Amino acid sequence: MKRILAADIGGTTCKLGVFTPELELLDKWEIPTDITDEGSRILEDIHLSFESKAGSHEYSTEGIIGIGIGVPGPVDFNNGILNGAINLNWTEQMAIAAQFESISGIPAIVDNDANVAALGEQFKGAGSGHKDVVMVTLGTGVGGGVVSNGMLIHGHGGAAGEIGHIYVDYNRRFQCNCGKKGCLETVASATGMKNLALNYYENGVTETLLAQQIETDSLSAKSIVEAGEKGDELALKVIDEVAHYIAVALSSLSAVTNPKYFILGGGVSRAGRMLIDRIEAYYRPITFPPAYENTEIIMAELGNDAGIYGAARLVKQFLA
Amino acid sequence: MKRILAADIGGTTCKLGVFTPELELLDKWEIPTDITDEGSRILEDIHLSFESKAGSHEYSTEGIIGIGIGVPGPVDFNNGILNGAINLNWTEQMAIAAQFESISGIPAIVDNDANVAALGEQFKGAGSGHKDVVMVTLGTGVGGGVVSNGMLIHGHGGAAGEIGHIYVDYNRRFQCNCGKKGCLETVASATGMKNLALNYYENGVTETLLAQQIETDSLSAKSIVEAGEKGDELALKVIDEVAHYIAVALSSLSAVTNPKYFILGGGVSRAGRMLIDRIEAYYRPITFPPAYENTEIIMAELGNDAGIYGAARLVKQFLA
Repeated sequence: MKRILAADIGGTTCKLGVFTPELELLDKWEIPTDITDEGSRILEDIHLSFESKAGSHEYSTEGIIGIGIGVPGPVDFNNGILNGAINLNWTEQMAIAAQFESISGIPAIVDNDANVAALGEQFKGAGSGHKDVVMVTLGTGVGGGVVSNGMLIHGHGGAAGEIGHIYVDYNRRFQCNCGKKGCLETVASATGMKNLALNYYENGVTETLLAQQIETDSLSAKSIVEAGEKGDELALKVIDEVAHYIAVALSSLSAVTNPKYFILGGGVSRAGRMLIDRIEAYYRPITFPPAYENTEIIMAELGNDAGIYGAARLVKQFLA
Repeated sequence: MKRILAADIGGTTCKLGVFTPELELLDKWEIPTDITDEGSRILEDIHLSFESKAGSHEYSTEGIIGIGIGVPGPVDFNNGILNGAINLNWTEQMAIAAQFESISGIPAIVDNDANVAALGEQFKGAGSGHKDVVMVTLGTGVGGGVVSNGMLIHGHGGAAGEIGHIYVDYNRRFQCNCGKKGCLETVASATGMKNLALNYYENGVTETLLAQQIETDSLSAKSIVEAGEKGDELALKVIDEVAHYIAVALSSLSAVTNPKYFILGGGVSRAGRMLIDRIEAYYRPITFPPAYENTEIIMAELGNDAGIYGAARLVKQFLA
């Protein structure tokens, strides 16, 4: 039987999936990611795990159309090159697609994990039925992917869709992991929420339920959201500013790519309506009207499965 | 002989071109745009002008692969609908492609004029040889187009590539034609330069070569650039701020679409190196390093011919 395989490699686990050629999910499971010895066994482990399931899903190497692989690092998509993935202990450039092919004999296509998640949500999740979608993942950092006319945008060097690095904080208050200041990630991720809370606290907003956590350095995005739900002034200031900066980024994204949906995922997005309502309130007044008409800000639907759906979709788009 | 036709409709003239199927330009000429009677003769005039050249370029209706048409207004690309074009006295929605086809019997494809110019510069002009290019036209307003993997990005409703409406001025000082405040166009077009000059003048920067022009309401972007070249303080403040806001927009565009080239065109871009050097100086320090690596800011090359080249290219992409 013809099958499409998908793997979403994370720092702790790899999510694996087997799909029909029509992209129906037949099975999914997880294996631990073995990052010892510079992550040298990761691809082999994935291949062996798929082999062990071949019997139950009636496939053989010959019947596999291809495998899509999502990796947690920057990918030069056109050349199938991963420029390192810190969480996997992959420190060098790697020709990932070629390596997997030589291990398994299966054609492989590789993209960044945030991109494959965006593609998964676009075709199977919250964006289903629409070809123009932007996904924004608000977690420890801010990731994302831009799908235009049903295809991921990669750009010249594969750095497109790096929504977390849209420049929004003109005051450049906080250092970003990328080396710059002012990135969306510094003011809208879990880390960004803590940055803002500490900044307000140090500037005199000290009447807060979060005072003890701030003093003991145990502050979390979750506790800020919870304090906000109780009406805490500092927490609400933080959530309001997070929403403002996200709205600025969505406004830019609208003028540039005019998506039907902004799909929000990741831990910070669990602030839910409190956050989305504020983003909406800032977004529309600063956005070109034809570019936000019919655009909606919605929550992601596939959770951790988005990656394998998107990786399978890539196989269908490029290897089928 | 097989031919591709192209028309770039402007408020004063229509640029017309005849191309080979390989997109070599055989001939180009202009006809006046007759906007009387609600512009009802524009499409007919274009058709007749092409018919009059049929003999000299050895084509007949049957040999024409298609015509690409650029129009000065917002286009719903997927449906071939123009949502009005003020400069042509076209006040209503028009199914332009279908109308031209019924007049001429020739398959037509229609896009916004800024988009076709971007596509023309990408494949034949300054962007030649690269598939990921953003064009920014700095004129009376700010227009643009985003080409990703060789294709124009249109978005859900056709409002993608509206670079002039990226939100950059958080102080929202000046009203934009779109109804909002803070758009790039309000601080980086010819109009935007005047906005900024008047704003500085009113706020006390009155020692300027431009004082008389400001007082007599005869200020122009050209005179601001000329005063800047003479070292005028107010003019240099304006040019510096224009460059900063353009850099902010290019930074967003890099994180979202990661182009190889930013191609600058339009009258304001004739400020040349004085402007580009300042944009460069602001752009790189605020941009995600992998997204600006190998990216260059360059000048457009095709001038008024960009539109017909891009329109012909659309025929090749969608009708050939």
